[in-house]
Amino acid sequence: MHQYPELGFMEYYTTYVIGEELKKLGFTVYCGKEALKSDARYGVPPESERAENEKRAKAMGVPEDWMTAMHGGHTGIVAVYDTERSGDHLAFRFDIDALPIEEAEQDKHVPFKESFISKNKGVMHACAHDGHTSIGIGLAQFIAQHQNTLNGKFTLLFQPAEEGGRGARAMTEKGWLTGVDAFYSGHIGIQSLPVGTIAATTKGFLASSKLNVHFKGQSSHSGMKPEAGRNALLAAATAATQLHSISRHSEGVSRINVGKLIAGNGRNIISDRGYLELETRGETQNINEYMQMEARRILEAAAAMHHVDVEIDFVGETEELRCDELLIPSITNACQTSDLIQNVEPYALVSGSEDASFMMNEVQKQGGKATYMLFGTHLPDNHHSPHFDFEEEVLAVALDAYIHIVKGGNEIA
Amino acid sequence: MHQYPELGFMEYYTTYVIGEELKKLGFTVYCGKEALKSDARYGVPPESERAENEKRAKAMGVPEDWMTAMHGGHTGIVAVYDTERSGDHLAFRFDIDALPIEEAEQDKHVPFKESFISKNKGVMHACAHDGHTSIGIGLAQFIAQHQNTLNGKFTLLFQPAEEGGRGARAMTEKGWLTGVDAFYSGHIGIQSLPVGTIAATTKGFLASSKLNVHFKGQSSHSGMKPEAGRNALLAAATAATQLHSISRHSEGVSRINVGKLIAGNGRNIISDRGYLELETRGETQNINEYMQMEARRILEAAAAMHHVDVEIDFVGETEELRCDELLIPSITNACQTSDLIQNVEPYALVSGSEDASFMMNEVQKQGGKATYMLFGTHLPDNHHSPHFDFEEEVLAVALDAYIHIVKGGNEIA
Amino acid sequence: MHQYPELGFMEYYTTYVIGEELKKLGFTVYCGKEALKSDARYGVPPESERAENEKRAKAMGVPEDWMTAMHGGHTGIVAVYDTERSGDHLAFRFDIDALPIEEAEQDKHVPFKESFISKNKGVMHACAHDGHTSIGIGLAQFIAQHQNTLNGKFTLLFQPAEEGGRGARAMTEKGWLTGVDAFYSGHIGIQSLPVGTIAATTKGFLASSKLNVHFKGQSSHSGMKPEAGRNALLAAATAATQLHSISRHSEGVSRINVGKLIAGNGRNIISDRGYLELETRGETQNINEYMQMEARRILEAAAAMHHVDVEIDFVGETEELRCDELLIPSITNACQTSDLIQNVEPYALVSGSEDASFMMNEVQKQGGKATYMLFGTHLPDNHHSPHFDFEEEVLAVALDAYIHIVKGGNEIA
Amino acid sequence: MHQYPELGFMEYYTTYVIGEELKKLGFTVYCGKEALKSDARYGVPPESERAENEKRAKAMGVPEDWMTAMHGGHTGIVAVYDTERSGDHLAFRFDIDALPIEEAEQDKHVPFKESFISKNKGVMHACAHDGHTSIGIGLAQFIAQHQNTLNGKFTLLFQPAEEGGRGARAMTEKGWLTGVDAFYSGHIGIQSLPVGTIAATTKGFLASSKLNVHFKGQSSHSGMKPEAGRNALLAAATAATQLHSISRHSEGVSRINVGKLIAGNGRNIISDRGYLELETRGETQNINEYMQMEARRILEAAAAMHHVDVEIDFVGETEELRCDELLIPSITNACQTSDLIQNVEPYALVSGSEDASFMMNEVQKQGGKATYMLFGTHLPDNHHSPHFDFEEEVLAVALDAYIHIVKGGNEIA
Repeated sequence: MHQYPELGFMEYYTTYVIGEELKKLGFTVYCGKEALKSDARYGVPPESERAENEKRAKAMGVPEDWMTAMHGGHTGIVAVYDTERSGDHLAFRFDIDALPIEEAEQDKHVPFKESFISKNKGVMHACAHDGHTSIGIGLAQFIAQHQNTLNGKFTLLFQPAEEGGRGARAMTEKGWLTGVDAFYSGHIGIQSLPVGTIAATTKGFLASSKLNVHFKGQSSHSGMKPEAGRNALLAAATAATQLHSISRHSEGVSRINVGKLIAGNGRNIISDRGYLELETRGETQNINEYMQMEARRILEAAAAMHHVDVEIDFVGETEELRCDELLIPSITNACQTSDLIQNVEPYALVSGSEDASFMMNEVQKQGGKATYMLFGTHLPDNHHSPHFDFEEEVLAVALDAYIHIVKGGNEIA
Repeated sequence: MHQYPELGFMEYYTTYVIGEELKKLGFTVYCGKEALKSDARYGVPPESERAENEKRAKAMGVPEDWMTAMHGGHTGIVAVYDTERSGDHLAFRFDIDALPIEEAEQDKHVPFKESFISKNKGVMHACAHDGHTSIGIGLAQFIAQHQNTLNGKFTLLFQPAEEGGRGARAMTEKGWLTGVDAFYSGHIGIQSLPVGTIAATTKGFLASSKLNVHFKGQSSHSGMKPEAGRNALLAAATAATQLHSISRHSEGVSRINVGKLIAGNGRNIISDRGYLELETRGETQNINEYMQMEARRILEAAAAMHHVDVEIDFVGETEELRCDELLIPSITNACQTSDLIQNVEPYALVSGSEDASFMMNEVQKQGGKATYMLFGTHLPDNHHSPHFDFEEEVLAVALDAYIHIVKGGNEIA
Repeated sequence: MHQYPELGFMEYYTTYVIGEELKKLGFTVYCGKEALKSDARYGVPPESERAENEKRAKAMGVPEDWMTAMHGGHTGIVAVYDTERSGDHLAFRFDIDALPIEEAEQDKHVPFKESFISKNKGVMHACAHDGHTSIGIGLAQFIAQHQNTLNGKFTLLFQPAEEGGRGARAMTEKGWLTGVDAFYSGHIGIQSLPVGTIAATTKGFLASSKLNVHFKGQSSHSGMKPEAGRNALLAAATAATQLHSISRHSEGVSRINVGKLIAGNGRNIISDRGYLELETRGETQNINEYMQMEARRILEAAAAMHHVDVEIDFVGETEELRCDELLIPSITNACQTSDLIQNVEPYALVSGSEDASFMMNEVQKQGGKATYMLFGTHLPDNHHSPHFDFEEEVLAVALDAYIHIVKGGNEIA
Repeated sequence: MHQYPELGFMEYYTTYVIGEELKKLGFTVYCGKEALKSDARYGVPPESERAENEKRAKAMGVPEDWMTAMHGGHTGIVAVYDTERSGDHLAFRFDIDALPIEEAEQDKHVPFKESFISKNKGVMHACAHDGHTSIGIGLAQFIAQHQNTLNGKFTLLFQPAEEGGRGARAMTEKGWLTGVDAFYSGHIGIQSLPVGTIAATTKGFLASSKLNVHFKGQSSHSGMKPEAGRNALLAAATAATQLHSISRHSEGVSRINVGKLIAGNGRNIISDRGYLELETRGETQNINEYMQMEARRILEAAAAMHHVDVEIDFVGETEELRCDELLIPSITNACQTSDLIQNVEPYALVSGSEDASFMMNEVQKQGGKATYMLFGTHLPDNHHSPHFDFEEEVLAVALDAYIHIVKGGNEIA
């Protein structure tokens, strides 16, 4: 999997491989607009980029019928296995997308040394979603093999475009979480922990909003006729500095960041274009909403200040997320019999944001329980770094955790 | 005069002294709402400040009927002498107001050494308008004494509130410049020149607009509930810095300045109020208009950016000003016979702004000619400084210039 | 007490009244430089302001020897009562200063309606320190009356200048907390709670730093010679907006506020002076230190940016503060027999900052225990408002709490 | 020429073509480090870009010896013809570089319609330097053909890298202007005028400085550890907005523009890099120097404010420029006999900047005379636009002007 990373909503090959495998295992497989609510996706790449990646996927051997189903960026798989015996409905979510990072080509980077680095130049699995995908397939194999001793129903969600908080809402709004009794997702790494340590829940994920902002002004020669310009570079720069004047919030953690600013034409031209990529975060939905609304007001005022137009695109979001503490004892008990798991922490402190929050909140709203777990591994470098890697043994640990959870809940007594 | 300085629209005593003197000389004297169009005045001081100064003036002996006529800040005098013989209608303008500056009490400052400094503590004639007033009275005396040898008509405008560009428009709009053939005003000093040198015209005055700006937000405890505040201090500070992003103008000189910023309640309170005093200038009306419109947009955007309200008060203005070059030879010729004037420069370069521009533009619009002259003196310190002073001999020079101009134009041959 | 509010380091009359009363009760009373380490005070008012208030105090009848001891802003009292029987050394701290607020003169404000509003116009006890002082005197009376049934030692600290975090360090560094076994302070109000409810501890006070900042530039005429100015108004405005770019801190709560900005001379002058009052806060000493260091760098850069000089005065601080949880059961038990106290909460959540933190940290460093309590009252308006008031019955409740604490710890069995 | 545009310091083919032609005509030709002072060039493109263009030039047939001479960006030609008869030393300067603009491919654009658009994709002669080069070759042909009837000495400077003010200083400092009696350069277009109208001199070129600025900070995850970042994006944005606070200058025209701002890594990363391209301009050297020094101070303060490093590269400049008015009558007289020139204006008003200023100032410093002329043509679109074009007839007019100037000054009587 590590060799074939694909960016969000363009995981054509990955989706195909997962889908074919799960079909063979006897799962009912949903793909394309059956799996996703099309207009609930955020930040779908432009047509030209999709076309190029569709070409790439075809060249890799993805058959025409798969390509047709996924056309327009409808990637990801929902796979369902119903034992038709009464019992809990368990859902497991695995994210499958990669990042626009050029993988390190140095011997200290194991995938390079052992010759399995990315074959899709400039794209890299630098956040372990390849691992997550493998775990998901492993879990599917377990369920298929043990179908006779299990009861209840299993839904596996192979979600596209987790990076940027773009894909989870589209699966959620398609209704896949309806009736789910317990929902499990999780992440390899985040903290550097020994392989064999897992956490039953996590605390600290923030709600977030991702915005792209386009300022459009009027260019003019800066020496000859400066007053005729409407300066979009200044609007973008003003917005970037002023966004930090959004006040801290007394109810909890907040964040603001402009991570990219590109503006201008040439040295002697009043700039007619400016572009920002930014995000807001908040400990609660309410705080993040406050941050986002303040940000929008400031962006519009920055445009008005420099007499330019502004367009704000909402390109991703995550919700606040609270793991059910009631799952801590059940997960801990279930995992006690695992040979691979030495230590189950009740919770791990994390930060960042997760769009699994959409699914978890949906499950909880309907009365089910949900958690987001952590699977320990030593990390040679940070997530999202060209040198990111994890210890392969964590894959077996994480799979074993899920298997024990399934057995703990749905094994026929 | 130097001992009794009074601020704009509160020159009660000054107006009374001038008015009584000119009545005695046989001029028809117009005062109060006869002299000024009430609602064409800018920046009239608040009731409380006027009341205090009215009290002061009464204590100085200004009679009740004068106080009634001037009530509400209607100061200044228009005095007319009509020989009833055909001839040119000449107008001369003298500004009479002082500045809110505490006069220096040091021996090197002549008015202190010779015991004639301001008796109105905190107010000072630091721009020579006391001199201008004296010259005006001197000219009135000359006209009265030579009424039999002069023809035409003479209008003397003793204008209030020149500082801040607040008074000239109100006299102009009352119609006093209608039918004027030639208009003369001028200034003592500006440049440091020898006494005896005068300039027939000036170049370089800028059109200007003066704005006071009030931001109103919402206060809140900065530690306990910062997000509940709407920060007027930040709005004012943002406006002050961003106003400088108004582009230079390719057609000529422009200026922007925020000269005062007062904001805030206390250290640990999100501020609910912010106040700015600013001005824009431009070489032409068009450029100043551009500057003012840009400034207004930025002020409103700064308010929107910090979610506060803004009120912009227009408190004064001057227009661009072009002296008639045709007056250069006539003034030069007229002054050749003066014993006091050694040198008549065709023009002097100045900067700053003058609301005599309103009168001059009105005269020129109607086909008359207008100029703004300079009367040389050595200056020990800058205009608007607590040590400002001029050489007294310049008063005789300036008066002699005006007398020769009158004789040159309106003496019966 | 409410009628005679005095500002920090100028509580001359208040100090005298407390001191005389405690002397009569048999306490050993320390005042002036005996009570405070002179140069550990922050933000002592300027000579002129002190002189005026010393005059006021003398007029109110404070005798010469008291004035001499307090000269130069050495207010406050430390009063010690040693039973000379072995037992715990208990310290209680009461803050005595008032605020620069003009008290409301409306019937809905009880002190006005009942004719006991401030007689020191423009100064008001709007934070209940008058109540704190009364409680302290009440406690002294109890100790004196029950001297025979008590053991151990009692130190009462009547601290000046709590507002702005200016006085506590000076008492602490004088060594008064050495050997203290248990330290108690507390506040009336903060939250609106029923009278009869108290909290044994508080959580949420932030460490803080208070800075005054002076920018000094060069003035110049904004129309004639703008490039000759060095603009201190712009430096101050730039600093105010840029201070908000200090990043949020991942380890906890932080705050930044510029609460006052005064800059400028006049509309048409490039400003040569700018002044800011600001504060930083942090959940921990470390976070506040980060905030303060960042603020200093930004202030200096803002000065450099506009080519002006800057002077940063450190005028107050508070430390982070952690109440000893071990005191919760002892306080709860002690208060069970009080008729006035219905409810002892283990802790109350607060915000803001407290310089009692200096004393508490000193006690804890030496092995003693310390807490900061809350005494419930309904609040008709916010602290620091002209309408601030509290229910008088809370005074008896708070006093009774301290009395029960004394009896619980130091009564002879 | 229009088909083979080349960017500054990479005009390898253009230089070769000119050089070979002038050798044939009998000129002494200087190239490479003989023509330019290597380290007096500004903004030489990086090695990689030069290497690519050297490859391109070789592919176009430029021989090895020419490539060796020009290696490392030493393009341009100085060609000298000395009649060895006493007489004036005349110098003519022609700029030869093109712009990084993709030429329009539309029928309304004549070079496209008539199939002679750029063959060097992405590079275009959009400022008529191809025309200037042709005029220079034409003038060389005239001189060669009329060598027997001319006296004095002729130096033709085919200067590289005029765009960005990068090449002229390097030719000037090599000493080519020493002993020159009269210097002529000029431009096709600028204003839209009828073919047949020329201007003997120009007024309004501004001195200018071009700076590239690199901010380097420290990246960090904006959600997890924002306080660990040092934000180069904010430094760049702050600099861009604050640069506009450089005050207007009372002595004349000034300009400031940031024309490009590129900063940031990704949405959720505190940015570690920021880049600006900017320029300052001034009516005089003094004003431009003021602008540049202020800009540098602000750039450094913006870096300090956000705790990042900054590197300022000086990449080009032009000087102020004053044409000798004494050349107006001589040019006017000389051109009277031209059939192609209908009208010689004494001067044309222009704006923008010109590095011919270096050469002109050098000539004037040594006692020679210098001018910068204008050659009228109707312009379908602005200079530096993808649709820029001129009427071909202007080439003959401009050449005829230079020929008449040569004949007027150096023809053997």
